[in-house]
Amino acid sequence: MARLPHILVLNGPNLNLLGTREPEVYGRTTLAELEEFCRTSGEALGLSVDCRQSNREGELVDWVQEARDSAQGLVLNPAGYSHTSVALRDAVSAVGLPLIEVHLSNIHRRESFRHHSYISAVAEGVICGLGVEGYRLALQALAQKLKG
Amino acid sequence: MARLPHILVLNGPNLNLLGTREPEVYGRTTLAELEEFCRTSGEALGLSVDCRQSNREGELVDWVQEARDSAQGLVLNPAGYSHTSVALRDAVSAVGLPLIEVHLSNIHRRESFRHHSYISAVAEGVICGLGVEGYRLALQALAQKLKG
Amino acid sequence: MARLPHILVLNGPNLNLLGTREPEVYGRTTLAELEEFCRTSGEALGLSVDCRQSNREGELVDWVQEARDSAQGLVLNPAGYSHTSVALRDAVSAVGLPLIEVHLSNIHRRESFRHHSYISAVAEGVICGLGVEGYRLALQALAQKLKG
Amino acid sequence: MARLPHILVLNGPNLNLLGTREPEVYGRTTLAELEEFCRTSGEALGLSVDCRQSNREGELVDWVQEARDSAQGLVLNPAGYSHTSVALRDAVSAVGLPLIEVHLSNIHRRESFRHHSYISAVAEGVICGLGVEGYRLALQALAQKLKG
Amino acid sequence: MARLPHILVLNGPNLNLLGTREPEVYGRTTLAELEEFCRTSGEALGLSVDCRQSNREGELVDWVQEARDSAQGLVLNPAGYSHTSVALRDAVSAVGLPLIEVHLSNIHRRESFRHHSYISAVAEGVICGLGVEGYRLALQALAQKLKG
Amino acid sequence: MARLPHILVLNGPNLNLLGTREPEVYGRTTLAELEEFCRTSGEALGLSVDCRQSNREGELVDWVQEARDSAQGLVLNPAGYSHTSVALRDAVSAVGLPLIEVHLSNIHRRESFRHHSYISAVAEGVICGLGVEGYRLALQALAQKLKG
Amino acid sequence: MARLPHILVLNGPNLNLLGTREPEVYGRTTLAELEEFCRTSGEALGLSVDCRQSNREGELVDWVQEARDSAQGLVLNPAGYSHTSVALRDAVSAVGLPLIEVHLSNIHRRESFRHHSYISAVAEGVICGLGVEGYRLALQALAQKLKG
Amino acid sequence: MARLPHILVLNGPNLNLLGTREPEVYGRTTLAELEEFCRTSGEALGLSVDCRQSNREGELVDWVQEARDSAQGLVLNPAGYSHTSVALRDAVSAVGLPLIEVHLSNIHRRESFRHHSYISAVAEGVICGLGVEGYRLALQALAQKLKG
Amino acid sequence: MARLPHILVLNGPNLNLLGTREPEVYGRTTLAELEEFCRTSGEALGLSVDCRQSNREGELVDWVQEARDSAQGLVLNPAGYSHTSVALRDAVSAVGLPLIEVHLSNIHRRESFRHHSYISAVAEGVICGLGVEGYRLALQALAQKLKG
Amino acid sequence: MARLPHILVLNGPNLNLLGTREPEVYGRTTLAELEEFCRTSGEALGLSVDCRQSNREGELVDWVQEARDSAQGLVLNPAGYSHTSVALRDAVSAVGLPLIEVHLSNIHRRESFRHHSYISAVAEGVICGLGVEGYRLALQALAQKLKG
Amino acid sequence: MARLPHILVLNGPNLNLLGTREPEVYGRTTLAELEEFCRTSGEALGLSVDCRQSNREGELVDWVQEARDSAQGLVLNPAGYSHTSVALRDAVSAVGLPLIEVHLSNIHRRESFRHHSYISAVAEGVICGLGVEGYRLALQALAQKLKG
Amino acid sequence: MARLPHILVLNGPNLNLLGTREPEVYGRTTLAELEEFCRTSGEALGLSVDCRQSNREGELVDWVQEARDSAQGLVLNPAGYSHTSVALRDAVSAVGLPLIEVHLSNIHRRESFRHHSYISAVAEGVICGLGVEGYRLALQALAQKLKG
Repeated sequence: MARLPHILVLNGPNLNLLGTREPEVYGRTTLAELEEFCRTSGEALGLSVDCRQSNREGELVDWVQEARDSAQGLVLNPAGYSHTSVALRDAVSAVGLPLIEVHLSNIHRRESFRHHSYISAVAEGVICGLGVEGYRLALQALAQKLKG
Repeated sequence: MARLPHILVLNGPNLNLLGTREPEVYGRTTLAELEEFCRTSGEALGLSVDCRQSNREGELVDWVQEARDSAQGLVLNPAGYSHTSVALRDAVSAVGLPLIEVHLSNIHRRESFRHHSYISAVAEGVICGLGVEGYRLALQALAQKLKG
Repeated sequence: MARLPHILVLNGPNLNLLGTREPEVYGRTTLAELEEFCRTSGEALGLSVDCRQSNREGELVDWVQEARDSAQGLVLNPAGYSHTSVALRDAVSAVGLPLIEVHLSNIHRRESFRHHSYISAVAEGVICGLGVEGYRLALQALAQKLKG
Repeated sequence: MARLPHILVLNGPNLNLLGTREPEVYGRTTLAELEEFCRTSGEALGLSVDCRQSNREGELVDWVQEARDSAQGLVLNPAGYSHTSVALRDAVSAVGLPLIEVHLSNIHRRESFRHHSYISAVAEGVICGLGVEGYRLALQALAQKLKG
Repeated sequence: MARLPHILVLNGPNLNLLGTREPEVYGRTTLAELEEFCRTSGEALGLSVDCRQSNREGELVDWVQEARDSAQGLVLNPAGYSHTSVALRDAVSAVGLPLIEVHLSNIHRRESFRHHSYISAVAEGVICGLGVEGYRLALQALAQKLKG
Repeated sequence: MARLPHILVLNGPNLNLLGTREPEVYGRTTLAELEEFCRTSGEALGLSVDCRQSNREGELVDWVQEARDSAQGLVLNPAGYSHTSVALRDAVSAVGLPLIEVHLSNIHRRESFRHHSYISAVAEGVICGLGVEGYRLALQALAQKLKG
Repeated sequence: MARLPHILVLNGPNLNLLGTREPEVYGRTTLAELEEFCRTSGEALGLSVDCRQSNREGELVDWVQEARDSAQGLVLNPAGYSHTSVALRDAVSAVGLPLIEVHLSNIHRRESFRHHSYISAVAEGVICGLGVEGYRLALQALAQKLKG
Repeated sequence: MARLPHILVLNGPNLNLLGTREPEVYGRTTLAELEEFCRTSGEALGLSVDCRQSNREGELVDWVQEARDSAQGLVLNPAGYSHTSVALRDAVSAVGLPLIEVHLSNIHRRESFRHHSYISAVAEGVICGLGVEGYRLALQALAQKLKG
Repeated sequence: MARLPHILVLNGPNLNLLGTREPEVYGRTTLAELEEFCRTSGEALGLSVDCRQSNREGELVDWVQEARDSAQGLVLNPAGYSHTSVALRDAVSAVGLPLIEVHLSNIHRRESFRHHSYISAVAEGVICGLGVEGYRLALQALAQKLKG
Repeated sequence: MARLPHILVLNGPNLNLLGTREPEVYGRTTLAELEEFCRTSGEALGLSVDCRQSNREGELVDWVQEARDSAQGLVLNPAGYSHTSVALRDAVSAVGLPLIEVHLSNIHRRESFRHHSYISAVAEGVICGLGVEGYRLALQALAQKLKG
Repeated sequence: MARLPHILVLNGPNLNLLGTREPEVYGRTTLAELEEFCRTSGEALGLSVDCRQSNREGELVDWVQEARDSAQGLVLNPAGYSHTSVALRDAVSAVGLPLIEVHLSNIHRRESFRHHSYISAVAEGVICGLGVEGYRLALQALAQKLKG
Repeated sequence: MARLPHILVLNGPNLNLLGTREPEVYGRTTLAELEEFCRTSGEALGLSVDCRQSNREGELVDWVQEARDSAQGLVLNPAGYSHTSVALRDAVSAVGLPLIEVHLSNIHRRESFRHHSYISAVAEGVICGLGVEGYRLALQALAQKLKG
C-alpha cells in the first residue's frame, strides 16, 4: 500500500503554553488540542502528520534538517524566532522542502518588531491571523501542492 | 429558505491581466478562471460569492463600502494598492466586516517596497504565496468564521 | 448685485461614511449634515459654498483644477489621500488659490503614517482635531483673507 | 452673576519680538496687539482671556500647571519649544484641560525640524499658518467646546 | 502598405494645465501644443503617435494595458504618480513594451520626495529636465530601438 | 561627631504634581510624601538627604553644580528633561559625583521618545519602573557605594 | 507554617564566568558568590530564593515558564539575550509574574546595540549599573511588591 | 565663417573599457566608436564635438573647468564618480555651462547606491538607459538649447 | 569721541565651571580669566566687550534679544544648548546681528549628538577646537566684518 | 616532549549539511572532509586541531568558554549566528583567546542582513569567500601568531 | 638665524576658480590673492607660508604626507573632498601635525551633504563661514599653538 | 619554460607611510618590507608578484585595468578608497580577474564608516585584521585557485 505523504508540523517557543497564555491574543485551544486538530485535518486530506514543539532554536533547526529524509512538507510556526533566527531560515533554505509559515495572530497588528520574519522569504507561503484554522489551511495547501 | 452568507471577492490593479502577464510570478490561471474557481469553491462551502476587479483605487474603495450592506465578508487582493493606499485601508476599517487579504505570490520574496501592506493591520488575516489556492483558503476561513 | 465670494469644500475618501463609521474617531455628524453646516456657516460669513465628496484621487484633482475658474478659495479634507497623493498636492500648487486643509480628528494622535500630509506644505494653513467646527473656522479664515 | 469661562493664552520664546522680527514670516502685528486682539475676541465669544509670554521653558511649564486651578482652557503657541520640549508636553498632559496649539506661520513649509511638535499629540487640536486670526479661531473652538 | 509603428504618449496628472501652471517650472507650451509636437515629431521619425492625458491613476493603468494590443512603444510622463504608484509600475512590467519615462523638469533639483520614481526601474530609459524636447528625444530613442 | 554623608535628591519638571496627575502612570504619593520618604529612608541608611524639585532645566543644572561642594552623591529623576537635556548631562559629567537616575514609571513601556535618556550614560546606574520604592533603592545603592 | 514567597533568580549567557571575565566591566564576584549573596539577601527579606544560570536561550525560556507554578516573582539578568531574544520576552509576557530585569554594568555606557533590551518593556522595572547590589535591590523591590 | 558651437563630451572611469567589459550591461560599442559616433552626430547637428575620457576624478574636474573658455556645453557620463564626487559637482556648478548627464545603462535598475548621482541636481537634464543613442540625444538637446 | 563697536560674548551652560571641570577636554582657564581675555583682546581690536554666562536657555534667549539694541555683534558658545535649542536659534535669527559660534573643544571628535548644532545655520561663522584662542579669533572676525 | 599548540575549530548551525546543501553557495566538501582537512592542515603547521559543530547557540557559547582551559586559539564559522548572537560575541570577548572568524562564502555578496557580524569586532581577523581553503589560512594565521 | 616655522596651506578642488565662480557664495577674492594674503598674514605672525591647490584627491594626499618633513602645521580647505575623502582623512591622521580645517562659506547653511566633513574629527580645529579672513585666523591659531 | 602565474599586489592611499604611521594600528613593517615579503611569499608559492602603491584613485583604477592583460590575479588593499570608490569597484568588476581584498587592521573594530567596503561585493574573498601575514594568505588563496 502506498505511504501517505508525511508532513512535519513544528511549533516554536512558548507555544507549549497555548490556551493558557494571553488567550485574548492566542485563543483557548491548547497545544495538545492543536496537534490533534492537525493530525485529524491531515488525515482528512490524505496526509500523515507529525507534530513537535520546542523552545530551543537549535532543536528546531535539527528537526527542520531531519525533515529532509522523513517528510514531504513542513508547517512551521516559528513564534518568537520568526524575527531573530537566521539559523532557522538557513535550515529551511537548505532542506528544500515546501514549507508554509503559520502565525496564530495577525502579526501586522502587533509591535513593529513582529512585522518582519526571516522565514517568510524562504517559505512557500505565509498564513497569519486565522488562529488554529490557519494550520488546517496550511496542510490543505501542502496537500494541494503535493498532488499538483 | 435561508440565504447563503454573501462574500465579495475584490481584485485590484493589473489582476485583469492574470494568466497572460509574467506567468512565472503569477501563474497561468486567467482572471475569469480565478473568479469561477472562487464561485465554485464558495458554493462548496455554502457561500454565495461575487467577484469584481478594478484598476482604480477609488472604485475599490466604493466596493468595499458597498459591502457593508450586501456582504458578510470580504476577500481582497489589493495588488499594487497594498503598498500605497491609506484610502483603501480606511474603507476596510470603516465597514467593519471580516476581510482576508490574499496575494498570489509571496510578497516577501520580491522588492522590499512590497513587504509592507497598509491593509494587513486592518485585515482579519493574511494569506500569501499560495497562488489561486489562497483564495479558496480565504473563503474557507471566512466560512469557518461565519459559522463559529 | 455683487456676487458672493465662492468657496469649494472638498471631502476625500470615506468621508461619505461620516457619522456612521467609527464615531469615536470621527463623531456622529453625517456628510449631508456637515455639508449643510458648511453652507450655512458660509452664508453667515458672506460666502457662497459648494460641497463635494469623492473616493477617487483623480476626481479630487479635477475638482481642484476646476476651482481655478469658479472659486476664490478651497477647504480640503484630503482624508486618506493626505498621506499618499503627490498628484493632489501638485493640483493645489497649480491652481494658486488659498486653501485650508482640515482634518476632523487630531492626526498627530493616530498612527505615525498619518502625521505627514503632502498637502500641508502647499496649503495656506492647517486645522486639525476640532471636528466639524474645524470647517467653519476654515471658512472664517478664508473669509478674513478674501477681505484683507 | 456667572463667571465667564477663563482661558489662558500662552506665547513661547521670541514671540515678544512679534511685529519687529522677520515680518515676512510672522507678520506686522506686535505681541501687545496680538494679546489685545485675543482679549477682545475672547470677550466677543463670552470668554475671559489672560495672556502671557515667556522665553523660558520652565516658566511656561509653571503657567500650564497653574491653569489647572484658574482656567477652563488653554491656547498655546509653543514656538521654538514645540520641537524640543517633553517637559511642556508632560505639563499639558498633566493638567487635563482642553488646549489648542497655534502657530502663526505654516510650519510645514519651513525647515524639516519644525514639522514635528511634541505638543500636538496632547493637544485637542492644532491650527497653523493662519496668522493672528489663528488665535481667534482657537478661542472660538474652545468656546464651542466649553458650551457643547 | 506597411503600417507605421504606433507609439502611445501618456501624460499624467495636472499636465492638462501645462503652459498655464507654474511656467517657471514647466514652461509655456500647452498640452495641446505638446501633443501636436509629439505627433509631428513622430511623423518625421516614421512613427504614428497617439497622445492621452489623465488625472486618474486607474485610467493610466488601463491605457498602459491597452497598449499591449495597439502599440509598439510608450512614452510616459507619470507626473505626480511617479513617486506613489506601484499599480502603474506593475502595468508597465506587465505589458512588456519598451517605455521611455519623461519628466519636463529636472526632478533631482526639486523636493526630495520627487527624486525617486517607481517607474524608472521598469522603464527602458529615463529623460528628465529637457522640457518638451525630452518627448521628441524619447520618440527618437523608440524609433531607433524599433529599427535596431 | 562625624557628619553623615549628604545626598541631594533632585526631581525634574512636573513632579511637583505627583499624586495628583495621571495616578495610573505615576501613583498616588505626593511630592511632599515622596520627599519625606526619601529623608526617612536616608536616615535609616545613615545618610542626610536634601530634596528639591524644579520645572526649569537651568535651575536643575545649577543644583547639580552646587552639589560638588555640598554633597557626596545625587539621586536624579530628570523627568521630561531626560530625553532632551544635554546641559543637564554635561553638569552631571562635570561634578563627578556618583549619581543614580530614577524613573517612577517603566519608560520602556511608554512612547519611544522616552526610551533614550541623555543622563543614563553619565549616571552610575539607572532604576526605573519601581515607583517611589526606586528612590529608596537608589539611596541604598549610594550608601553602599560610599561605604565600599 | 506559612511558606516564604519564592523568587527565581535567572542569569543568562556568560554569567557563569563572572569574576573571572573582564573584571573591569563586571567586577570580581563569582557566580557562586553572587548566588549565595542572593539567597542570603532573600532570606533577610523573608524570601526563599532559587538561582540558575544558562548559556541557552531555550533553557531560560523553559525556566521562566516553570516559574508560573513555582514562584511569585523573577529576577532576570538576560545578558547577551537582552538584545536579541523575542522568545524570552514572550515567555515573560506569558507567565504574568512580576519580573525585575537586572544588569551588572550600565548598558547605556557600552556599545549602542546594548542600549535596547527586548525584556524591558515586559518587565516590572529595570535596574542597571549597580553591580551585584542591583540583585539585592531587585529582591527588595519584589519583597515590597509582594507585601503591598 | 562663423565657428560651430563647441561641445565637450567627457567620459568617466572605466569607460575606456567600453565594449570589452560586461557587454550585457554596457553593450558592445568601444570607446573609440562611441567618440566617433558623438563627433559624427555632432556634425549632423551643426556642433563641433571634442571627446575625452579619464579614470581620474581630478582630471575630470580640470576638464570641466577648462570648458568655461573653450565650450558652449557639456555632455558628461560621470560613471562611478556620479555617486561619490562632490568635487565634480562643484566644478559643474562653477562653470555655469549647460550640461547633460548621460548614463549608458538604466542606473535605477542596478544596485541602490547607483540610484543617487551628485551631478543630477546641477545638470540641465539627465538621460539614462538608452545606450550610446543617449549621447546623440544629449547633443541634440544641447543643439536645441543653444539655438533657442 | 566715537563709541567703540560693542560686542556681547555669551557663554552657555556649565561654562561657569571652566578650568575646574574635565580640564583634559576644556583646558585650565577659568571663566573669569576667559572673560578678561575677551575684554583685553577686544580692546586691542578696538571693540568694547561685555561678557555673560548662564545655565538657562531662556536667559540666553533674553540676552540675545537685548543685543539688538545694545550691540553690533555677538560671540556665542551655546555649549549643551547647541544641540537642543531651537529657541536660541530663533532668537539669533530674529536679532539679525552678525554672530560667531565658538566651541572650546572640537565637537566633531566627541559623541555624535554633539556634531549637529542648531545655531550653526544662523551664525555668520563657526570656530571650534581652538580653545580660548577661538574667542579672540571670533572677536577679530567681527572687528574685520564691522570695518568692512 | 612539548605539546603542540591546541586549536579549536567550531562550526555553527547548518554546517553539518555541508556538501549536500546549496553546493553553488557552499561547495561540495562535506563537514567530515572539512574537519579532516583542518586536522591535516593543522598537523602540517604544528598544531593539534579539534573540530566541533553545533546547531545550538548555547552549545557554541559553552565550547568557546571551555577553550579557555584547553586551547591556545579558535577558528569560528558562526554561520547564521554571526548576525544575531550577542551571547556568542560576549563569550569570545570573555575567553580572551585569539580567534579567526571564517565564512565559506563571500557574505558581502549576499543579502544585506549577512553583511554585519557581531563576532567580527571581537575577532583577531576575518577571512571570507575563500571556501574551505579559508580554514587552512586561518590556522596558518594562528600558527604564525602563536610563534610570533 | 633661526628658521621661521613653516606652514603649508592646501586648497582643494575648484578653489582655483575662486573669485570667478559663484561670488555670492565664495566672494570675489581670487586664489592668487588669497595665497598672497596667506603669505603676508603668515609673515606678520612670524610664519613662513607655502600655498598649493589641486583638484586631485591623491595629490592632496601626497602633499599632506610631504608636510611631515617640511612643515610644522597645515591649513586645509578640503572643499568637495571634505565630504567624501577617507584617504585625505587618513593622511591627516598619519602625519600627526596640527591642522586647521577652513571653509570659506558656512557649510551648515548649504545642502545637507555638506554638513559632514571626514576631516573635522582629525583636525585640531575648524573655522567656517568667515571668508578669506578664516585663513588668517587659522594661521594665527597655528602660530599661537607653535608658541605655546 | 612555462611562465609563472603573475599576480599584481596593489596598495592604496597612505600605505606608503606604512611602519612610520600609527604603528599601534598598522604595525612596524614598512611598505618596502611588505612588498619584499609579498614577492618572496609569491616565489615560494610559484607566483611571480609585482607590487605598486598609489595615493590616487584614478591610478589604482588604471592599474586594475592593466592587469587584464598582464596578470592572473590581484591582491588589493584599497585603504581609504574602500569606503568611497565606486570607480575602483567598477574597475574590479570589469577586469574579471580573481581578486582578494586585504586590510591590515580589523576594520570592524574601527569607526563605523570603515565597516562597509564597496570592493568586498566584487572580490573573491576578503581577509582583514591579520597584518602583513594577510597578504601571504591572499597570495596562497590565489595560488590555490589558479591551480584548482
